[in-house]
Amino acid sequence: MLAEIKGLNEECGVFGIWGHEKAAEITYYGLHALQHRGQDGAGVVTSDGERLKIHKDLGLVNDVFKNADFQDLQGNAAIGHVRYATQGDGGIDNIQPLLFRSQTGSVALAHNGNIMNAYKLRGELERDGSIFQTTSDTEVLAHLIKRNSTSDYETALMEALRSLVGAYAFLIMKENKLYIATDPRGLRPISIGRLGGAYVVASETCAFDLVGASFEREVIPGELVVIDNNGISSKKFADAEPRTMCAMEYVYFSRPDSNVNRVNVHASRKKMGIELAKESPVEADVVTGVPDSSISAAIGYAEQSGLPYELGLIKNRYVGRTFIQPSQDLREQGVKMKLSPVRGIVEGKRVIMIDDSIVRGTTSKRIVRMLKDAGALEVHVRIASPPITNPCYYGIDMSTKEELIAANYSLYGMAKLIGADSLAYLSEEGLKRAIVREDLPHQGICTACFTGEYPVIEKGQKTIEYTKC
Amino acid sequence: MLAEIKGLNEECGVFGIWGHEKAAEITYYGLHALQHRGQDGAGVVTSDGERLKIHKDLGLVNDVFKNADFQDLQGNAAIGHVRYATQGDGGIDNIQPLLFRSQTGSVALAHNGNIMNAYKLRGELERDGSIFQTTSDTEVLAHLIKRNSTSDYETALMEALRSLVGAYAFLIMKENKLYIATDPRGLRPISIGRLGGAYVVASETCAFDLVGASFEREVIPGELVVIDNNGISSKKFADAEPRTMCAMEYVYFSRPDSNVNRVNVHASRKKMGIELAKESPVEADVVTGVPDSSISAAIGYAEQSGLPYELGLIKNRYVGRTFIQPSQDLREQGVKMKLSPVRGIVEGKRVIMIDDSIVRGTTSKRIVRMLKDAGALEVHVRIASPPITNPCYYGIDMSTKEELIAANYSLYGMAKLIGADSLAYLSEEGLKRAIVREDLPHQGICTACFTGEYPVIEKGQKTIEYTKC
Amino acid sequence: MLAEIKGLNEECGVFGIWGHEKAAEITYYGLHALQHRGQDGAGVVTSDGERLKIHKDLGLVNDVFKNADFQDLQGNAAIGHVRYATQGDGGIDNIQPLLFRSQTGSVALAHNGNIMNAYKLRGELERDGSIFQTTSDTEVLAHLIKRNSTSDYETALMEALRSLVGAYAFLIMKENKLYIATDPRGLRPISIGRLGGAYVVASETCAFDLVGASFEREVIPGELVVIDNNGISSKKFADAEPRTMCAMEYVYFSRPDSNVNRVNVHASRKKMGIELAKESPVEADVVTGVPDSSISAAIGYAEQSGLPYELGLIKNRYVGRTFIQPSQDLREQGVKMKLSPVRGIVEGKRVIMIDDSIVRGTTSKRIVRMLKDAGALEVHVRIASPPITNPCYYGIDMSTKEELIAANYSLYGMAKLIGADSLAYLSEEGLKRAIVREDLPHQGICTACFTGEYPVIEKGQKTIEYTKC
Amino acid sequence: MLAEIKGLNEECGVFGIWGHEKAAEITYYGLHALQHRGQDGAGVVTSDGERLKIHKDLGLVNDVFKNADFQDLQGNAAIGHVRYATQGDGGIDNIQPLLFRSQTGSVALAHNGNIMNAYKLRGELERDGSIFQTTSDTEVLAHLIKRNSTSDYETALMEALRSLVGAYAFLIMKENKLYIATDPRGLRPISIGRLGGAYVVASETCAFDLVGASFEREVIPGELVVIDNNGISSKKFADAEPRTMCAMEYVYFSRPDSNVNRVNVHASRKKMGIELAKESPVEADVVTGVPDSSISAAIGYAEQSGLPYELGLIKNRYVGRTFIQPSQDLREQGVKMKLSPVRGIVEGKRVIMIDDSIVRGTTSKRIVRMLKDAGALEVHVRIASPPITNPCYYGIDMSTKEELIAANYSLYGMAKLIGADSLAYLSEEGLKRAIVREDLPHQGICTACFTGEYPVIEKGQKTIEYTKC
Repeated sequence: MLAEIKGLNEECGVFGIWGHEKAAEITYYGLHALQHRGQDGAGVVTSDGERLKIHKDLGLVNDVFKNADFQDLQGNAAIGHVRYATQGDGGIDNIQPLLFRSQTGSVALAHNGNIMNAYKLRGELERDGSIFQTTSDTEVLAHLIKRNSTSDYETALMEALRSLVGAYAFLIMKENKLYIATDPRGLRPISIGRLGGAYVVASETCAFDLVGASFEREVIPGELVVIDNNGISSKKFADAEPRTMCAMEYVYFSRPDSNVNRVNVHASRKKMGIELAKESPVEADVVTGVPDSSISAAIGYAEQSGLPYELGLIKNRYVGRTFIQPSQDLREQGVKMKLSPVRGIVEGKRVIMIDDSIVRGTTSKRIVRMLKDAGALEVHVRIASPPITNPCYYGIDMSTKEELIAANYSLYGMAKLIGADSLAYLSEEGLKRAIVREDLPHQGICTACFTGEYPVIEKGQKTIEYTKC
Repeated sequence: MLAEIKGLNEECGVFGIWGHEKAAEITYYGLHALQHRGQDGAGVVTSDGERLKIHKDLGLVNDVFKNADFQDLQGNAAIGHVRYATQGDGGIDNIQPLLFRSQTGSVALAHNGNIMNAYKLRGELERDGSIFQTTSDTEVLAHLIKRNSTSDYETALMEALRSLVGAYAFLIMKENKLYIATDPRGLRPISIGRLGGAYVVASETCAFDLVGASFEREVIPGELVVIDNNGISSKKFADAEPRTMCAMEYVYFSRPDSNVNRVNVHASRKKMGIELAKESPVEADVVTGVPDSSISAAIGYAEQSGLPYELGLIKNRYVGRTFIQPSQDLREQGVKMKLSPVRGIVEGKRVIMIDDSIVRGTTSKRIVRMLKDAGALEVHVRIASPPITNPCYYGIDMSTKEELIAANYSLYGMAKLIGADSLAYLSEEGLKRAIVREDLPHQGICTACFTGEYPVIEKGQKTIEYTKC
Repeated sequence: MLAEIKGLNEECGVFGIWGHEKAAEITYYGLHALQHRGQDGAGVVTSDGERLKIHKDLGLVNDVFKNADFQDLQGNAAIGHVRYATQGDGGIDNIQPLLFRSQTGSVALAHNGNIMNAYKLRGELERDGSIFQTTSDTEVLAHLIKRNSTSDYETALMEALRSLVGAYAFLIMKENKLYIATDPRGLRPISIGRLGGAYVVASETCAFDLVGASFEREVIPGELVVIDNNGISSKKFADAEPRTMCAMEYVYFSRPDSNVNRVNVHASRKKMGIELAKESPVEADVVTGVPDSSISAAIGYAEQSGLPYELGLIKNRYVGRTFIQPSQDLREQGVKMKLSPVRGIVEGKRVIMIDDSIVRGTTSKRIVRMLKDAGALEVHVRIASPPITNPCYYGIDMSTKEELIAANYSLYGMAKLIGADSLAYLSEEGLKRAIVREDLPHQGICTACFTGEYPVIEKGQKTIEYTKC
Repeated sequence: MLAEIKGLNEECGVFGIWGHEKAAEITYYGLHALQHRGQDGAGVVTSDGERLKIHKDLGLVNDVFKNADFQDLQGNAAIGHVRYATQGDGGIDNIQPLLFRSQTGSVALAHNGNIMNAYKLRGELERDGSIFQTTSDTEVLAHLIKRNSTSDYETALMEALRSLVGAYAFLIMKENKLYIATDPRGLRPISIGRLGGAYVVASETCAFDLVGASFEREVIPGELVVIDNNGISSKKFADAEPRTMCAMEYVYFSRPDSNVNRVNVHASRKKMGIELAKESPVEADVVTGVPDSSISAAIGYAEQSGLPYELGLIKNRYVGRTFIQPSQDLREQGVKMKLSPVRGIVEGKRVIMIDDSIVRGTTSKRIVRMLKDAGALEVHVRIASPPITNPCYYGIDMSTKEELIAANYSLYGMAKLIGADSLAYLSEEGLKRAIVREDLPHQGICTACFTGEYPVIEKGQKTIEYTKC
């Protein structure tokens, strides 16, 4: 499953609010709803109209704001961020929002995505005498704006955005303005909602549900939304290309209760399961899903196939990040970590195991063995998305093609490798049928990791030293 | 649902092992599997044959053993405990295992259950000059044994057990022996398994699955099991009464992947849903369950009724104990805490909402409103167990009859109170059909909280100042 | 110096107050003044007349009460304790005050001293069925009282005290009474003072100065003082033997600003220096003292000899307990820890170095070398107390005679061993002249560690497994 | 005394080393010796020739490196810093060393002093597009260098130094070089030493003593010292003005065991006491000093006057930063904080109380009252430096003239205000006699705060938003 590579299965999440007297607290709750998008760091910046204040740290939202005195985070506006950290990415400095102060004012940035030409842009800025504070690609935008000698902030911002190549959703807050921008293809989700008289912004709509806000609309590719005390307005900083929302948002990243680009994620996953059952049925006794992300698809598969959905695998909810990993010999003796098979369910049964995806195959292999050790007679693996055969350059850390099992083995070879009695993937068409709603505008998904057809490519960029998101 | 009263929905959990060189680590993993039974404190005592060593603290297993050097917990034997804490119960002192040292040797106790005559016994012991260290009812057993002038520990232990009234499963470890005892009715689950050459004991079999052990047998009511380096033996300290396993272990407490008294919990819950669908069908569009404990029953109901099971409610996984609760005004504005409705699923639908039980009704009322606010046209509440009309004296903190909504309102009155369009409970017969396996020995459940027929009663006990479990 | 053996240079400290609405806070400040007597743990128990409340933990007073909400420590009465911990003494359980609750009331104990027959008494109590909670000798007193079937607490307490052998000062608090008791020889200091309408008790009078209380009197050997809301009264539980106050209280333990048995400690130390200069003069350029405990004696020596007192050695104030000790090779390269020589002062000089005592000699050797490495031409060591040749059984952890350098070497041998150009000790008579005030009652010191003449001896006691104080 | 205003009595401290395989550890020990110069934050940056690594945090050196794995701070070179923090100075970001990374290399800065034109320089740099990371005046130097388009780092550094106005001692480390620079008047002490084959640098020589290094020389005003693997070299970046070492380094800041500008601090303080006794004798019984900084002067005064030096005031060593301050009513009842009078010493005596300085007078008033409350018949205050009548612009936070009592009252008025029976200050000439050694080069002190004659003044600078040091 996609969770098998650390850093591969996680995006960042952003939340913002303008015009609410408890801006910091609402943002705190909003970040809770987005916690699954980044569990290594969190932060909030508020504006009281005159000053920006910040609180951020490593850890879960709960940990970061454990002793939070929201008294210190005054103001009617706030932006927040949750992120995941990859090795060597500079610790707390890279946690967002990034906040830059100067004698003439401050600006805070929160970003979800990946700037592909960040290394090149930073090199140019450094040669001109700029000093960077982080290794985050997000900081490049701040310097591009600052270096622009135009006196108009908005013009400088739009020019800076135009020089970026990549997939991004930005929240940019000054003392008296909140800007929202997304790339010309709209690869990353970002929505606007209302909470009483206030405006809210979030990577996923589940954050609106949690704080009691109502969904208003999605930000359009290439759009710059400006919110201030006079209300909301919209500009176009670039021509919108056809929308190519990241398909993985539906397959894995987003919460099932979110609507991404107006499509409910749980519903789309259930449809993936239904399509998969149509395309690749198999004789069996029970259908089970790998928790948590594959449960919806498994229920869909069961409904369509008429087989009972059962709880064949269970996830240990209390295995936190301080969990002491079992040593090699204990693992060999059978000590499980996160996932356990339910012997009472699978013993003596032919099991259809639904998963969202396969990356390197090692996890799938482990789960299949687990089920067989618990007495499953047969294990038929069904994957609710197409084979991943290409790396992603837009923010998902899939590294190299060499690591992707589907890029290197035949279907039969993979089945053998993971020990499954049969293996099938959902087709690209099946995936599109499950996600794309013909009746809605701005639909369309990015399937580059399945097809190798990338919607935007900047040749020769060096991303390896960069911290995404 | 049962989770609505803090301390009401939680039991303790015990784990033990004899004859494994990594006894402490195995116990650590075993306690992880039992974490849901008690999240306020955890501890492990090991024996190396000559000395007992202890590590315990407030918090989750992960927190307590965060920096654990298992080097300090040497020995081939160990017992562990997870507990929930009620207000004013003395903090860390009451965390188990309790360890008592004397010049002639040490003894450690871990207990799941409730000693109903503990207050009376303690009073007698104090009058004779004993000083107690904790406010836990578990300590009474240690003093009863110590006060017995017989030179034989086992005899003293059996005499002490006979003077206890209540529901209990005890692990008692000395330097060179591990004792396991359960009350004459077997109200609390306790099973024995094998892990290579070692014996393991646990409140639930899911702990065996996690550490890779195989289930051997349940401890029989009134039985004292003795394990030492010579092997395992069994004594009868009291005549076994008919088994009355706590029904709530199936309905709520135990993990779905556990077998309690040889019956799989998920399977029994699914059957509760099936029986409930047979008894109380209703026209609707979707079936949804209150996560996590009611999901299995909801799937069963959906399967039987032919309606689609959908994810109408979602639980926020990251709301930990440091979560800052929203203030009253934010709650009124709609900020949710643990549970959110999925608007995309329930909007415009007639929803059947399956829950495991209703205690005070406040939570049910909140969830029904949540679903309606998210657009549900109708909400039909179906409860997968009978109405709780009587307090429990065996370890579940249901307080007084006055608080139990079902003891004070008609079905119609309750439906109105919680705002449901209809309400139905599973019958006692339906519950028994879902749980009791006629083909197995020692079956039988305690349904006292539904019926008021208590299997054991000690009149006039004063339990209020006591810490159970 | 005496500080050279961990645990050897430290006593415990007790503080109590009756009749002040901020009893817990006053005790907190009082314990600060006594912090030097025990830096490993601290605790406070309060009484509001109906309930005792406790807060205690490992660490300095500051750490233990870091987040203290004194709101939780209500009541007009309190006792507190600071202690030092020796290895294997059971951690937090042994931190005092010890608090014992029963169905009929609670009692708290705080103790400074050593019960020599504790092991024997505990063995007897355990054989009769008592279970101990700690490895502290203090707990024996609680059980002795509890076991006494007399209905009168005070009678039971006095009988229990009479069965103790050793050096002790006890504070015992019940809901409505505070008892103070000291052993029949009065080996440990304990004084009573007044703070407005309240009574205060402390191991040292410096605690009175810090909280603004005035000294009233010392507790008399063999006396039981009883304080309650009706005032103060005194009983004699044993015939007073001649006072033998521990001489080390003057030489090392107590703060220079305290009066012990009505004699100011700084003044007595300065007189030790004066007597020492009279007994053992030597030609030199400067006098310096080993900080902090030998500074007063060094100033006395300088005054008497007419030589300038200079700051030849300096102590690093910021070396706390988390200090990372320099590795062996760094120490050999010259990295110092706590103490540094002042090159600008000692270079090219003949130095008289005053220390309070020599135990094993290793520290003295290190300091002499340090001074010579910094350029001192000669180092003449003068010790402001007699040679320690015998172990102490009254609470000071000097272990065995084999470790005491003065018990095994001649004066010349010692001087050679520590590298001093000359070495002299103060005589026993000189010490007595410096301390004992003929004009005051109840004077007299214990010099057993110098002379081997022990004022109280219980033969054959096994103290090694016991936690003193 | 000078300690009475938080932030007023503290400087920063720097330490560096080049060519030692345990560079980080040596720096850790060196910073311990300098801890008194800044207790709010500490940090170390190392270089292994290719990469700079950093560890820094709020707190004492002990706290910051509590769990330090020096394995992570590899390299043969290191610089370290201890600092004090003033309110609103941006928290951890401002802790030094500051580390700046770029695609072409990194640079770390540690600074003791105050750049008076920092605000102006920063404004210019920001207008040209630079983004600052901290509010520290130290960062300005980094940007000045980076902005310089010259290809030679050393040239850019010297040009940047020339644009600074103020009092400073800088350590600047790149991967393969260590630079040391001090301002053209040499207001802040900085010395070079040897430790085996390695070079060490420190604000005070006491750091050399602690790590076992030998003093080599002071850095000359206006000098840039360059150390690399080829050895040490020296350049002159500005013409040296006459040396004006801050007099307060002798009076208050530096440790008594340090030599500042080759003059031992304890010796100079003792001479201040001697000069003071000559200038302002008074009939009395005892001489006492306010600990710790006035003890040396008090001993000098006692020696010169023939009166006994006694311990009339004692400092509570264990009052840390988590100390809970007594409430107003407890203070009024007499609860002391840091300092206690020794009743046994001062009662019935005429006391001469030596202090290093008076700033606002509130502390002096409190101490005089304390001594009188403890029974002193007369209190004669003697100050071992001249009256402070002018603010300092070089790094000492004395704020405005309005707060300085000596700038607003006559000697008689001050005596009355603080309740002293007499008051006298050391003359400026007396101070110079005590400090300046005619036989050594580069002597000379800054006495601006006594005389108002400032050696360097930049008109109109706005320092208030700046973090010094």
